[in-house]
Amino acid sequence: MPHFTDQLAAAVRRTGNAVCVGLDPRWEQLPWPITTGRENEPNGHADAYLDFCCGVIDVVAPLVPVVKPQMAFFEELGPSGMTALAEVIRYAQERGLLVILDGKRNDIGSTAEAYARGLLGRGVSPWGADCLTVSPYLGEDSLTPFVEVARDRGAGLFVLVKTSNPGGGLLQDLVANEQTVYRHVASLVEKLSAETAGESGYGLAGAVVGATYPEQLAELRAAMPHTWFLVPGFGSQGGAAKDVAPAFDSGGLGAVINNSRGIIFAHARKEYAEQFGDQHWQRAVEAATKLMIEQLS
Amino acid sequence: MPHFTDQLAAAVRRTGNAVCVGLDPRWEQLPWPITTGRENEPNGHADAYLDFCCGVIDVVAPLVPVVKPQMAFFEELGPSGMTALAEVIRYAQERGLLVILDGKRNDIGSTAEAYARGLLGRGVSPWGADCLTVSPYLGEDSLTPFVEVARDRGAGLFVLVKTSNPGGGLLQDLVANEQTVYRHVASLVEKLSAETAGESGYGLAGAVVGATYPEQLAELRAAMPHTWFLVPGFGSQGGAAKDVAPAFDSGGLGAVINNSRGIIFAHARKEYAEQFGDQHWQRAVEAATKLMIEQLS
Repeated sequence: MPHFTDQLAAAVRRTGNAVCVGLDPRWEQLPWPITTGRENEPNGHADAYLDFCCGVIDVVAPLVPVVKPQMAFFEELGPSGMTALAEVIRYAQERGLLVILDGKRNDIGSTAEAYARGLLGRGVSPWGADCLTVSPYLGEDSLTPFVEVARDRGAGLFVLVKTSNPGGGLLQDLVANEQTVYRHVASLVEKLSAETAGESGYGLAGAVVGATYPEQLAELRAAMPHTWFLVPGFGSQGGAAKDVAPAFDSGGLGAVINNSRGIIFAHARKEYAEQFGDQHWQRAVEAATKLMIEQLS
Repeated sequence: MPHFTDQLAAAVRRTGNAVCVGLDPRWEQLPWPITTGRENEPNGHADAYLDFCCGVIDVVAPLVPVVKPQMAFFEELGPSGMTALAEVIRYAQERGLLVILDGKRNDIGSTAEAYARGLLGRGVSPWGADCLTVSPYLGEDSLTPFVEVARDRGAGLFVLVKTSNPGGGLLQDLVANEQTVYRHVASLVEKLSAETAGESGYGLAGAVVGATYPEQLAELRAAMPHTWFLVPGFGSQGGAAKDVAPAFDSGGLGAVINNSRGIIFAHARKEYAEQFGDQHWQRAVEAATKLMIEQLS
């Protein structure tokens, strides 16, 4: 069984970059060639999300190692959206991409195991994701079922540690026993990763650490030597290339940097709108992806 | 637009009890009349979950105010499970029950709003739930989108505060600024509920507080006068009637007590197995529901 984080490290080496493209379809931001004629069709929104995400995948698959579908936007559509999500995951993998499913799931004990068994494992679970984001509030016994299923199936997880949103600090920055809450979570995640480290030196329990807090990124990189980072907040949330540099180890591994809206809706960004616009939205996706790769290199 | 917690209070008064029946279908525990012939059918598991949950609903709808489907077990089956879940929600509401969807969802800002818009609101959202469980790790700006959508749609939410699992304390019991982390979360939830209180005096942001910690139940009841509680852990997780008594206010309102396995799989409990067994599993569900109502009264 291949080790997920070893696969991720290999994919980063192969493509020469650590860009993760977030697949966050939002109806009102889709280009018109995708939405036209579908507004009032029974499964029109789900069909549009599927077409759009596959169109993004076609462009980015030769360029980046990994994509991250956001479950919320598919779940928002009801069952038809969830069916589209399953197809997006499969399509991305067929095109050679690793898939991190952004669901921020969690629950206790055997219920957490149900999520893990359903969502994790390419070809062996109904959803077949390579990796899943997980929330830590329920504690260690809510995380270990995900780690165990991930280990058995060549999959991985990323646990929320320090998030990129303004309100994240309310809970995460509280100080208990001379450490922030996010450092307590970081210790647990690092322990789970040290226990499951692969050949790359990184384990199966990654950490979500926002690009909007560069100092904490450096602090956590030092404190979590076995933990791969998923870094959201680049681009539209304000994080820049210099902000995410501390997420990487000295060999240039140890992190993937996510960009969702800045890439998938690049056709509406002022630098691309005139040149490409809605009509050539895939060329805008390509330009924005290549620009981000260049910025990170 | 009706106020969710007012509806819940009215349903508790009408039925004379505060029992919430958890719909946690697990294939290996279903009675054989539900599973036979379906083991290898394409959508056999999803069809079985739908039949089983509707069969439970038929029994409990005249007896209790509310049911709580656990999303993990439906999601475990892939898209076919999610389609069954949507039908279970609709069926329960047609039979007069309120539906709390147990998904422990959360995300930031507009992504949280996508979950809220998709899941919350009877007749106005694809899933149509009356209420959703939500995780608090991402802070206030991850909760307010749920509160706002809930208010607009006559729906509600329950935020994880103090959970019933053994490992929940790792994070929740940390002490910061002389208060436990769960008390910090409780303060935020109480504020959101005070701002949205209905005629019953309770607001739209409820709290999940485990039955396995009766002292904390009493502490939180006092600290959260506007907050309705969802109390898991009764029965199979060890909580008893005396343990959950502190969850209620002096008028007998302010909480619903969940029981999942103890009711839906009552056919396998030693007190019912011989009398009813798999064949008459619905009569075991009825007996277990009536026993719990009696224990709580």
